[in-house]
Amino acid sequence: MDVKAAIAFAAGQPLKIETVQLQPPQAGEVLIEIKATGVCHTDAFTLSGADPEGLFPTILGHEGAGVVVEVGAGVTSLKVGDHVIPLYTPECRQCKFCLSQKTNLCQAIRTTQGRGLMPDGTSRFSIDGKMIHHYMGTSTFANYTVLPEIAVAKIREDAPFDKVCYIGCGVTTGVGAVINTAKVEPGANVVVFGLGGIGLNVIQGARLAGADMIIGVDLNPNRRSLAEKFGMTHFVNPLEVEGDLVPYLVDLTKGGADYSFECIGNVNVMRQALECCHKGWGMSVIIGVAGAGQEISTRPFQLVTGRVWKGSAFGGARGRTDVPKIVDWYMDGKINIDDLITYTMPIEKVNEAFDLMHEGKSIRTVLTF
Amino acid sequence: MDVKAAIAFAAGQPLKIETVQLQPPQAGEVLIEIKATGVCHTDAFTLSGADPEGLFPTILGHEGAGVVVEVGAGVTSLKVGDHVIPLYTPECRQCKFCLSQKTNLCQAIRTTQGRGLMPDGTSRFSIDGKMIHHYMGTSTFANYTVLPEIAVAKIREDAPFDKVCYIGCGVTTGVGAVINTAKVEPGANVVVFGLGGIGLNVIQGARLAGADMIIGVDLNPNRRSLAEKFGMTHFVNPLEVEGDLVPYLVDLTKGGADYSFECIGNVNVMRQALECCHKGWGMSVIIGVAGAGQEISTRPFQLVTGRVWKGSAFGGARGRTDVPKIVDWYMDGKINIDDLITYTMPIEKVNEAFDLMHEGKSIRTVLTF
Repeated sequence: MDVKAAIAFAAGQPLKIETVQLQPPQAGEVLIEIKATGVCHTDAFTLSGADPEGLFPTILGHEGAGVVVEVGAGVTSLKVGDHVIPLYTPECRQCKFCLSQKTNLCQAIRTTQGRGLMPDGTSRFSIDGKMIHHYMGTSTFANYTVLPEIAVAKIREDAPFDKVCYIGCGVTTGVGAVINTAKVEPGANVVVFGLGGIGLNVIQGARLAGADMIIGVDLNPNRRSLAEKFGMTHFVNPLEVEGDLVPYLVDLTKGGADYSFECIGNVNVMRQALECCHKGWGMSVIIGVAGAGQEISTRPFQLVTGRVWKGSAFGGARGRTDVPKIVDWYMDGKINIDDLITYTMPIEKVNEAFDLMHEGKSIRTVLTF
Repeated sequence: MDVKAAIAFAAGQPLKIETVQLQPPQAGEVLIEIKATGVCHTDAFTLSGADPEGLFPTILGHEGAGVVVEVGAGVTSLKVGDHVIPLYTPECRQCKFCLSQKTNLCQAIRTTQGRGLMPDGTSRFSIDGKMIHHYMGTSTFANYTVLPEIAVAKIREDAPFDKVCYIGCGVTTGVGAVINTAKVEPGANVVVFGLGGIGLNVIQGARLAGADMIIGVDLNPNRRSLAEKFGMTHFVNPLEVEGDLVPYLVDLTKGGADYSFECIGNVNVMRQALECCHKGWGMSVIIGVAGAGQEISTRPFQLVTGRVWKGSAFGGARGRTDVPKIVDWYMDGKINIDDLITYTMPIEKVNEAFDLMHEGKSIRTVLTF
């Protein structure tokens, strides 16, 4: 079938809206009509060429929501008409990783997904007979896309696509890191580095978990009022701190953060995030994606005296199980998504959406079809 | 009173057996007759001068066992005749750290202990009117020593001093790191780097916890048979591995270690210990003490894909609560201490004990009085 898609033909070039061809879903796959998709830093990272695993040409996008319009043979958990969110981290419930109950990093289709292909090793997308790569297994910058059944979360039908698409990545990554990865408890003190689309969701996750002090750290003072709306209790601009940031934060938290979150991707900030944690139990969670080859460092004494260093991918969420719950939380008013969506515009303006992100003018732009 | 002690007058010099003067226990303190004490790498580290917090002159030793012979005013939990193990990590049960139930790093007397003094800011030891520092709050290289009540574990009276003294540091540090810090579960795969006095106790802790594969890594092939006796199932000598050690260990464990432990103090090994862990959930615990100023490094991707980096001090054990339990485990035959004590000799041979350790000829030497 013919599909309208924004294609990334090569690194560093603007996307082009084109009509591409999409093969029907094969066994275990479903065809989804994408109704809305967010534009995330990860799309920009790959588009920039800095992602060593980036493949071109490709259809970017991994933060979508839509409706199942066709199911392949053997699909049992989804039917035509189901409202869904595509998952770049699948949940097969059968692999060693899923069965461990210790991680959300299902590996069922990891190899082919990393190569920009469907599980059978081929692509469903092409243009003029030339193959186009899938991206993160989702490719939501197209009005139709094909996914394996195990990579699709079924959600309630009254949820607005142009809001809950954000649960496909940013919301779940931030809120989930607090709830699933760190398991923040009521009364905890939390420090969040970076008040962008992830950091603000960490903040509202911390509020949801009942944290006492929720400190946001960002160089951009304009982020303050929005972060406060999401539950931030203290704002720290490193440029306004005299002396080192770490001891400042340790003082502010009366001994250190119970939990800290790095939502930027800066290895120096990752170190600060660890070292501002409380002796004995402070846990630092890395969410941000660092540049290729960059390394984190600290003195081992930081760990021997009780700090814990870990990371979180997709908020530790098991997509098919947890994403529908987060949609419920949004619909019940427990989390705020609307105020994070700065712009909504048609897919044709996708390059403008990237520009707004690079200029720091948007938390999230949602594209509609 | 007059006391026989091995005194470290200055860094890098042999200890000297001298008669020193010991003040009686003050309020909240107890006088202990030390019956036996182990000689640990930490004593050697401080004696070498490499410990930036080392103070001289001092009476080293932190792995003792003995009997309470006098109690100061207000002491309620101990009485004359109690058999005890001195604790370099106290358990006051009242500070923020103890009350958190998240750490064993009681901070009640941290400041004075770090300065080589009793909680009132003075020393009980002197020679010819000149003050001698306490060491790690314990100073067990003396036939009598004074400790605060909160830093003394009461143990059963049928336990042999010249064996259970080792529970004052090495046994608890190794076994506790497995049970309290990592919380290894039955069926887990465990990799232990360094088969010295700590590593061998990690191995028997892993066996006690029901681990399946217990892999020991050491450059010294002579450690193999003893480690096997303690529960090691696989021995890896890095010198005999072709190519990189990390992928070798990942293969051997069919995906990576569920838990790894660094028992050497080498920051490069700490990185290997983290990176040989299983994607999704592998946890690496640093036990070894690195040289001053040394740093650990890795790519943050290692953490974002689910590995956890933490550390352990005194095996995460709350001394007054947990040490008596470990003594019971020894008396019940659940853990083996006898085979770790290579030599037992009088305190007068303390310098020989250090030599045996440096030459790799002993796991532990116990000194008696």
